[in-house]
Amino acid sequence: MKANALKQKIADGVNCVGGWVAIPNPFAAEIYAAQGWDSVTIDMQHGSSDINDVVPVLQAIQSSSQATPLVRVPWNDPGHIMRVLDAGAMGIICPMINTKAEAEALVRAGRYPPMGERSFGPFRASQYGADYWQKANEEVLLLAMIETRAGVNNLDEILAVKGISGVYVGPSDLSLSLGKPPTLDPTDKEVLAAIDTIVKTTRKHGLIAGVHTDGPVTALRRYEAGFQLCVLLNDVRLLAVAAQQVVNEVRGKGPAAKAKTY
Amino acid sequence: MKANALKQKIADGVNCVGGWVAIPNPFAAEIYAAQGWDSVTIDMQHGSSDINDVVPVLQAIQSSSQATPLVRVPWNDPGHIMRVLDAGAMGIICPMINTKAEAEALVRAGRYPPMGERSFGPFRASQYGADYWQKANEEVLLLAMIETRAGVNNLDEILAVKGISGVYVGPSDLSLSLGKPPTLDPTDKEVLAAIDTIVKTTRKHGLIAGVHTDGPVTALRRYEAGFQLCVLLNDVRLLAVAAQQVVNEVRGKGPAAKAKTY
Amino acid sequence: MKANALKQKIADGVNCVGGWVAIPNPFAAEIYAAQGWDSVTIDMQHGSSDINDVVPVLQAIQSSSQATPLVRVPWNDPGHIMRVLDAGAMGIICPMINTKAEAEALVRAGRYPPMGERSFGPFRASQYGADYWQKANEEVLLLAMIETRAGVNNLDEILAVKGISGVYVGPSDLSLSLGKPPTLDPTDKEVLAAIDTIVKTTRKHGLIAGVHTDGPVTALRRYEAGFQLCVLLNDVRLLAVAAQQVVNEVRGKGPAAKAKTY
Amino acid sequence: MKANALKQKIADGVNCVGGWVAIPNPFAAEIYAAQGWDSVTIDMQHGSSDINDVVPVLQAIQSSSQATPLVRVPWNDPGHIMRVLDAGAMGIICPMINTKAEAEALVRAGRYPPMGERSFGPFRASQYGADYWQKANEEVLLLAMIETRAGVNNLDEILAVKGISGVYVGPSDLSLSLGKPPTLDPTDKEVLAAIDTIVKTTRKHGLIAGVHTDGPVTALRRYEAGFQLCVLLNDVRLLAVAAQQVVNEVRGKGPAAKAKTY
Amino acid sequence: MKANALKQKIADGVNCVGGWVAIPNPFAAEIYAAQGWDSVTIDMQHGSSDINDVVPVLQAIQSSSQATPLVRVPWNDPGHIMRVLDAGAMGIICPMINTKAEAEALVRAGRYPPMGERSFGPFRASQYGADYWQKANEEVLLLAMIETRAGVNNLDEILAVKGISGVYVGPSDLSLSLGKPPTLDPTDKEVLAAIDTIVKTTRKHGLIAGVHTDGPVTALRRYEAGFQLCVLLNDVRLLAVAAQQVVNEVRGKGPAAKAKTY
Amino acid sequence: MKANALKQKIADGVNCVGGWVAIPNPFAAEIYAAQGWDSVTIDMQHGSSDINDVVPVLQAIQSSSQATPLVRVPWNDPGHIMRVLDAGAMGIICPMINTKAEAEALVRAGRYPPMGERSFGPFRASQYGADYWQKANEEVLLLAMIETRAGVNNLDEILAVKGISGVYVGPSDLSLSLGKPPTLDPTDKEVLAAIDTIVKTTRKHGLIAGVHTDGPVTALRRYEAGFQLCVLLNDVRLLAVAAQQVVNEVRGKGPAAKAKTY
Repeated sequence: MKANALKQKIADGVNCVGGWVAIPNPFAAEIYAAQGWDSVTIDMQHGSSDINDVVPVLQAIQSSSQATPLVRVPWNDPGHIMRVLDAGAMGIICPMINTKAEAEALVRAGRYPPMGERSFGPFRASQYGADYWQKANEEVLLLAMIETRAGVNNLDEILAVKGISGVYVGPSDLSLSLGKPPTLDPTDKEVLAAIDTIVKTTRKHGLIAGVHTDGPVTALRRYEAGFQLCVLLNDVRLLAVAAQQVVNEVRGKGPAAKAKTY
Repeated sequence: MKANALKQKIADGVNCVGGWVAIPNPFAAEIYAAQGWDSVTIDMQHGSSDINDVVPVLQAIQSSSQATPLVRVPWNDPGHIMRVLDAGAMGIICPMINTKAEAEALVRAGRYPPMGERSFGPFRASQYGADYWQKANEEVLLLAMIETRAGVNNLDEILAVKGISGVYVGPSDLSLSLGKPPTLDPTDKEVLAAIDTIVKTTRKHGLIAGVHTDGPVTALRRYEAGFQLCVLLNDVRLLAVAAQQVVNEVRGKGPAAKAKTY
Repeated sequence: MKANALKQKIADGVNCVGGWVAIPNPFAAEIYAAQGWDSVTIDMQHGSSDINDVVPVLQAIQSSSQATPLVRVPWNDPGHIMRVLDAGAMGIICPMINTKAEAEALVRAGRYPPMGERSFGPFRASQYGADYWQKANEEVLLLAMIETRAGVNNLDEILAVKGISGVYVGPSDLSLSLGKPPTLDPTDKEVLAAIDTIVKTTRKHGLIAGVHTDGPVTALRRYEAGFQLCVLLNDVRLLAVAAQQVVNEVRGKGPAAKAKTY
Repeated sequence: MKANALKQKIADGVNCVGGWVAIPNPFAAEIYAAQGWDSVTIDMQHGSSDINDVVPVLQAIQSSSQATPLVRVPWNDPGHIMRVLDAGAMGIICPMINTKAEAEALVRAGRYPPMGERSFGPFRASQYGADYWQKANEEVLLLAMIETRAGVNNLDEILAVKGISGVYVGPSDLSLSLGKPPTLDPTDKEVLAAIDTIVKTTRKHGLIAGVHTDGPVTALRRYEAGFQLCVLLNDVRLLAVAAQQVVNEVRGKGPAAKAKTY
Repeated sequence: MKANALKQKIADGVNCVGGWVAIPNPFAAEIYAAQGWDSVTIDMQHGSSDINDVVPVLQAIQSSSQATPLVRVPWNDPGHIMRVLDAGAMGIICPMINTKAEAEALVRAGRYPPMGERSFGPFRASQYGADYWQKANEEVLLLAMIETRAGVNNLDEILAVKGISGVYVGPSDLSLSLGKPPTLDPTDKEVLAAIDTIVKTTRKHGLIAGVHTDGPVTALRRYEAGFQLCVLLNDVRLLAVAAQQVVNEVRGKGPAAKAKTY
Repeated sequence: MKANALKQKIADGVNCVGGWVAIPNPFAAEIYAAQGWDSVTIDMQHGSSDINDVVPVLQAIQSSSQATPLVRVPWNDPGHIMRVLDAGAMGIICPMINTKAEAEALVRAGRYPPMGERSFGPFRASQYGADYWQKANEEVLLLAMIETRAGVNNLDEILAVKGISGVYVGPSDLSLSLGKPPTLDPTDKEVLAAIDTIVKTTRKHGLIAGVHTDGPVTALRRYEAGFQLCVLLNDVRLLAVAAQQVVNEVRGKGPAAKAKTY
């Protein structure tokens, strides 16, 4: 089976840079994916992609890029998890893993027997090799999103579930769960302490620590804290910011309509 | 009929800022369109949009923005021109108008009788008012792309065709036509002279002068030269540049995979 | 080859009732088509259907209905005409046939040699029988839209073109062409006289006379005048009218928001 | 945050009129939505819409109408509920809420902490304002479908769950659950008594009572009984009825094929 | 209600031949379905079809074929099961039924009251007749996939659940569950014994026994063992094998690129 | 610019084997393309692909295969030709080139200045290199379909048009044009003589000779006659034949429904 390059790079100590696709369009995804990411994640949770979008977007990513393709599923649901793995995702980012039981459910859906109960039928993943069924449990990443107070409290138990590859921190939900405003760059002490706990505990378990950020500055701080995979906004936010910026550069020089705050 | 805001702003002397949609996805288009543009053009020529993409993308643009929606058609073809106008485009940008005859064909397709031969059936454009059939010839913009040596040579004749609202310059094609490398920011004297001729001749006719640019710096130069509508790259290029930039900001600080030159 | 039921009914003197699909959605089309029409026409001209919509909508129509499937193409263009016939349309309604030359072009695209130059590859039409290539020229209807003053003036010549099956009148465009407001139920004398001329001339040639109407009342008048196929609005207008009606029936009885004139 | 107009109107005593979209097509939805509804619900349960349809249909509704957009989810499932809210639905109609536990699950998925566990990422809902995360719990409607004997029996408990905004009655399922034929206009005493219990109990709790009907006559009866939101058939049924009606008006006057009972 | 032809044929002792659609494209499905199958199953589990694909693919199958349309759902989830039945599937193949409780859940979702809790709204299935709600529980097939050691162990209990129509064996998953390599033509004794147990137990219960195979040779063996429905690969595998075969027939005769093992 | 592998192989004397995609589905195309072809052509003429299908299908082909991607356009129309080249097609197969003028039109649309008038905007083709604009005229293939008596008669003139890379023979249309039944394996002497003339004349001009066949046997005969590229049926026909075959292998052994002749 083709090795999971992201897993290998993390093992090699690379600070991995993640892309994030919220625009379910293969043409945009192909060009976006080619910009140098270590991984590109298709977001089915806070985005409008269904499984019939995931297939062409995965093809697009793989046709232009060596980035490891991941999918954030809408929910911890076997129907979603098994299908996106069959479709060729090399890893799952699963929202809202708050308990050991939820982590076990993720493993049941994401791992072949005897570790789990994933059903066999890798309709696109078969391209990774005839031994996919033997190696997938090892190569495919299952990242549990730790994004609530409960998740942090139960972290040791969650990480002890065999088959979990690591965590992915959602700072906005974590902030909300702790009673703070949602933000990708939290400055609240309690939230920061929770993030710190997560990365330290995860690394102590020898597992992967990933995190969502609002861009390079925050990401660099997270790498220093021990995170190994940082995602830098998503495609649609990058596009909106870039568009607003060029409009503003021109508007400053002449009269024109104002940008809607949207 | 609802007035064409872009037409009005240009008449009022506003330096209009144009967006350009190559990603045929309504979610992306809705957010992109909301960033403060005076017009947003859906590109069917150097993009993959068909008419069945144009409808939802127009809806998306109109649901988030007051920008005037335009469409660049794939070719000077009545089937395309009439359908995108019916779908609610407030203007057409038509490639490769090189002769008076081609300008006349554009008018035939884009204007109702007696000025032209546009067929009646504004399936979405009817939202602009019950008098659409009476006012559309006045409100809808027909912009002829001047992008070849022939187009420049025949410009006076082209602009004299009743029903043509103005021009839109494609600097890359114009450069190629003059035997120079394609670029959105030409420095070649002959190309610059041709662009200058176009804007001066067009303004002399009292018509609209629009131009494609590679971003704010070039656009500001074009406004000074007399252009009234400048487009600042397209969405997919903005996205690619923005993505590469954030990747590079992080890569500079640690070891990682290099961006593919794509 | 499966016979064209619409053609047969018209030959048998049936007043044929036509449906008209502007909503390119197979679920809606399947239910709409099942309501008792003699023909259902997919409208690619004043609608947003592309060829990749036409295939599933044709399947939907054929799965629920015995209505003869027709397509109105966006323009008199071989690329459109040949593809929708290959896709299984049993007839073409072609906009804006104003001259003998345009009628000849329609026949070239819509008829196999030696009558025309249609290319062979009936990717769905092959379902009609192994002898499709031998019978299609006879069974497939080519209806020329007569909807301009020129079309009326050249009608005899147009109808004399071998391979043309008949005409389809577009009253809105015909009105516009004669300098009158577009309407599906014209009361203007000149327009009515033109319509009368069309139906009489067409029947004199022994060809089929079809017409677009705004509903049953006008349609019944047209049958009396000699038309053999009347279309009763389209699906989206029927839906809008029906929706407005039920809203109004409830609104009359209590306070509520008013319907937007759209 | 933009206020929920439907909620406000109900508070103001308006008899709200609801539209219902089963045709997942943005062009049809845009025109349908413009006909004067107070709310328009996209039906994902007894319809073929997936989340990738919901986004463009929401855009279409919002581009032509001030109606409050709601979504009926396929099932009481966090993956569906969270995504359609993120996509901009201003309320959820959730099928088959039969117990307090099911109502609590609905609230967990549909409300942000601390009331629920909704994940933060309003990819389109962010258009409602920067304070969406603070106000959404108040503005977004969560309507529990009461459509079984168990649901009626447990109604008090269900309505006592904090975060539930009201109920929506499905008369067909309620009839079936009580052993009667499914109908939108039940005349069976037991069913009518159950509906009466639901509306009275709901209003007693100060919550919203909505109901599905077969059209204006039944709706007017329901308003009198205390319902505040009545839906009048759905788009595809309205279309089928309207189509059958015009066909019949013409068929009565001449020989023709009969409508298939479909 | 239209009878379920597959059910009838099995009752009549026909060895039923099943098709399997993994390519969610209506054009391909229409032609594939016409090749003589007794049933055609749309695979939503190990395929990329969402519910919005299922509708047009069902229409395509039904427009060209008398084969009974089935759907394999992604998971034992009411949202999926109810919607594909509403869409017109005449039966469900449900993955991973390992326990009596899972079988009961399948029946709850797939059967109308009082047997189950299926919600009423057969948006396409209503085409089967006005008495669909009365007969569907009898005519619609619910086939439980038995594909794990637990499923085999609990088979008697599973089959005793009222409303289950029979089983469908997934040999690959069954092999994996028993610790063997996944294959559609197992030769392992333990796997073969399990398959034998399944078919015998199922037939003893008087229920339907179906099985996935790798083609005619294995299928004929399975019929002999008592299976009544055998599926012969899926469309995409058939296509790949056929393509490779024709390429190889030509390559043997001249130099050329080698086929990628994919 | 990335070299055109097909062109190179033909120059090297390889008997090139062509695939042909009529199913506009990226999942199917990806697997089909991986079976060892030298080229894979997306058929827009006798198929239902629009440009918005072509992009994801091209991505699919390129993600699994080294085959050179070509597109058969619906018609000799600049709108189609320019867009599919921009989308990344490495060559065009253009129907019905019967005259020198038609060949010149093909070159105008398919070649950059000064050879032609192709507009610059290679939205996906830019992946082939920054010098694409300089090399595309050389690397991109323009194959003229010779498929009528007129085409054969004018062949020398057609081949003399600078920019034409070669021919592609459509035996069905050629047969029809000569008054014979359409077939991919003609046995009629006049048709065979015409095919012979085409290949000899083309090779004499040093250009590429391609041909559509019904499979390996005919293809091998065509290579011997001098053709350098033979296409072996298309995907949907291969699938239908393969399906019918496996059904028949099982049906021979037991009672069952018969395949519809379709």
